[in-house]
Amino acid sequence: MPLKYLLPEDQLPSHWYNIIPDLPSPPAPVLHPGTLQPVKPDDLAPLFPMALIEQEMSSQREIPIPEEVRFALARWRPSPLFRAVALEQKLQTRSHIYYKYEGVSPSGSHKPNTAVPQAFYNAKAGVRRLATETGAGQWGCSLAFAGQLFGLAVTVYMVKISYEQKPYRRSLMRTWGAEVFASPTDKTNAGRTILGQDPRSNGSLGIAISEAVEDAATHEDTKYALGSVLNHVCLHQTVVGQEAQAQMKLAGEYPDVVIGCHGGGSNFAGIAFPFARDKMHGKKVRLVAAEPTSCPTLTRGVYAYDFGDTGKMTPLMKMHTLGHDFMPPGIHAGGLRYHGASPLVSQLVAAGLVEGIAYPQRACFEAAVLFAGAEGILPAPESSHAIKAAIEEARRADAEGQQRVILFNLSGHGHFDLGAYDQYLAGQLEDFEYPREAVEASMAKLPKVG
Amino acid sequence: MPLKYLLPEDQLPSHWYNIIPDLPSPPAPVLHPGTLQPVKPDDLAPLFPMALIEQEMSSQREIPIPEEVRFALARWRPSPLFRAVALEQKLQTRSHIYYKYEGVSPSGSHKPNTAVPQAFYNAKAGVRRLATETGAGQWGCSLAFAGQLFGLAVTVYMVKISYEQKPYRRSLMRTWGAEVFASPTDKTNAGRTILGQDPRSNGSLGIAISEAVEDAATHEDTKYALGSVLNHVCLHQTVVGQEAQAQMKLAGEYPDVVIGCHGGGSNFAGIAFPFARDKMHGKKVRLVAAEPTSCPTLTRGVYAYDFGDTGKMTPLMKMHTLGHDFMPPGIHAGGLRYHGASPLVSQLVAAGLVEGIAYPQRACFEAAVLFAGAEGILPAPESSHAIKAAIEEARRADAEGQQRVILFNLSGHGHFDLGAYDQYLAGQLEDFEYPREAVEASMAKLPKVG
Repeated sequence: MPLKYLLPEDQLPSHWYNIIPDLPSPPAPVLHPGTLQPVKPDDLAPLFPMALIEQEMSSQREIPIPEEVRFALARWRPSPLFRAVALEQKLQTRSHIYYKYEGVSPSGSHKPNTAVPQAFYNAKAGVRRLATETGAGQWGCSLAFAGQLFGLAVTVYMVKISYEQKPYRRSLMRTWGAEVFASPTDKTNAGRTILGQDPRSNGSLGIAISEAVEDAATHEDTKYALGSVLNHVCLHQTVVGQEAQAQMKLAGEYPDVVIGCHGGGSNFAGIAFPFARDKMHGKKVRLVAAEPTSCPTLTRGVYAYDFGDTGKMTPLMKMHTLGHDFMPPGIHAGGLRYHGASPLVSQLVAAGLVEGIAYPQRACFEAAVLFAGAEGILPAPESSHAIKAAIEEARRADAEGQQRVILFNLSGHGHFDLGAYDQYLAGQLEDFEYPREAVEASMAKLPKVG
Repeated sequence: MPLKYLLPEDQLPSHWYNIIPDLPSPPAPVLHPGTLQPVKPDDLAPLFPMALIEQEMSSQREIPIPEEVRFALARWRPSPLFRAVALEQKLQTRSHIYYKYEGVSPSGSHKPNTAVPQAFYNAKAGVRRLATETGAGQWGCSLAFAGQLFGLAVTVYMVKISYEQKPYRRSLMRTWGAEVFASPTDKTNAGRTILGQDPRSNGSLGIAISEAVEDAATHEDTKYALGSVLNHVCLHQTVVGQEAQAQMKLAGEYPDVVIGCHGGGSNFAGIAFPFARDKMHGKKVRLVAAEPTSCPTLTRGVYAYDFGDTGKMTPLMKMHTLGHDFMPPGIHAGGLRYHGASPLVSQLVAAGLVEGIAYPQRACFEAAVLFAGAEGILPAPESSHAIKAAIEEARRADAEGQQRVILFNLSGHGHFDLGAYDQYLAGQLEDFEYPREAVEASMAKLPKVG
């Protein structure tokens, strides 16, 4: 029995899959933060090049991947799909567990799948510099690498707690030529406002987004790039699920359940949307998004219009949210510390097509250490949420006397997160309860829309 | 044109290639450190299980790889072979550059190729614990992982300068259940002797080997494992070169030159020995071993009998050596800081079949940063020596109006070495001249053998 399923380079998908035309109803419009009217392409032009704005709003089911992008992705794609035989043996489960491994990319996660096309389209539009935020640093590294490929300067606002916890991520961005600041900074109005309220702020993705958006909006030659949440980002990630479908076919199985960890939604969308397409066409498959109990957007948030950032600079999106003012506890899965969610994933959750589930961080590290010992891959703390969910699915199936085929996305490796593993092994890692009061306070500040 | 050449799992080599029967003359015997007589298998029994001792001394050309070992290796093997198209473009070379990438393994280097079989044979022989040394930490991580696969406890003596420079390597070993000490320790006579002479000793591989050997020799249930130098270690690495041969065939080319970085010799042997076999059977191919100017064993050492360790506990091997007392400067390529070399590689150098070349560390980091920007893989400082050599080969070919096919082994990634990259980018990295006086002093202490 093979342990892994590889695809040749010419089976790198030729198109991205756009889920919008397959949704049960059209997506709720994105609203201008000033007028509360639906945004038009021109409203987004200060932030993004027109090719990406078109993808953001496209109703075309399949969008061709430019040859230059496929060539860049082919450095590591198609990524491998593994059968977790050793993990199955450790669990003594009768279920079959598969994982798609995105840690083989330059930055070690799924993020370059969208960094590369974003850099490509910006370079083509004559943009000179990209401003962005990063949580754990995976996205910032990915954009730094992609920027270098296409000759773009890159400025990264890195959430301060991650900047301090993951110094090697900064170094990697700098090796790829990016400039990196700990957010909140004193370089933007958004950052100065937060520092005025709390000079020791740990930062959050919401704050860092405000800073990057402000940087882009106030500099002629600079655009903004986002690593998750938006439709075109989810679109670019669908190479993951499309490859996984071809690889599961090689394995001769179809998953009963498909799992991804969930922060802004792009990793989950990447593995799940191509299977959601099957599901909307009648196939029986469960889609599970795993998130942290400390930032439980899908499982505890409301489905409502909210800002994407703390500074209320972004358009309003209808999404699952804990409120744009919510400051998640400083867990090590920095990439999952976001108050909102992808509008597309949110709509699927609201429609009952996707299930959310939340886990505390210690249980996820326990799952990650078990996985590392069996499979030999040290997972990112974000990805460990998917591992935990997969293990729980297998255990539940065994308890029910069932055998299931479980597929999850191992979104990245944890080579830059060993400080967190150290703390876990030393018994020093904190679990955070659901921060009910903070969420309620933040929810009270949701914008009142229609 | 494909960027990478992948082999299916069933093309994982079925045999290791033992170069001994193909050598122009039989290897010089290994001598007992007390009697100076050739060692017999029983002499090595306190350190190694008999299956490995047999492999160390075997004259069988092909040795079957046990199924349990192939199953464990298949987690990541066959490893990919890449055509460095983006690097070629940056260099504007007409040569074709290929690299075999061993960074896809659990620990991120070629080392698990031998850690897995060593742990397997020890577990089969009833051993309970393995003691070993590690330089940069790649080997210690690999043995920790392999030990966990087969239920063995693992104790690692980690060279102190690397213990301090690479804290995440320690964490990874501990995540895989190993105990890790900074060497020299006060736990062994060998360590205490060094600390008595220099309490602030940075350590060296030679010292750490003495400590691990002493630990194994003085504990009934414990054996020793070495990550390089010895014949059976080089043997296990030949899966690398065998796969590369099959992959170069897929690419429709045969290399004019095969390059590996060189510390103890196992990574170089892995890529080069299967091609050396071709060469000894008349094929035209150059084999180049790249080492640091600060520890230039092959290019400046003598080919003579010497101890493998500082404490003079190991048998005497005929090899290129800078003297067992030589303490290499604290370069970041910790895995290349070894006074000696594999006896097999040494014999090939002495016979004119392998060329050595030495580079200073800044030039290697420069090559590594160039490579990372083009290919998207951040190389280990050790591997950067091979990159530097490959780039120089391409430049020389261009200057000569030639087109060459260049293959090198990218032995590992540099995710745990970003502190070194930081220093390089900040212009703080030191270059070390050839340490002539230290080498001459050390050479004067070479044992006098027949």
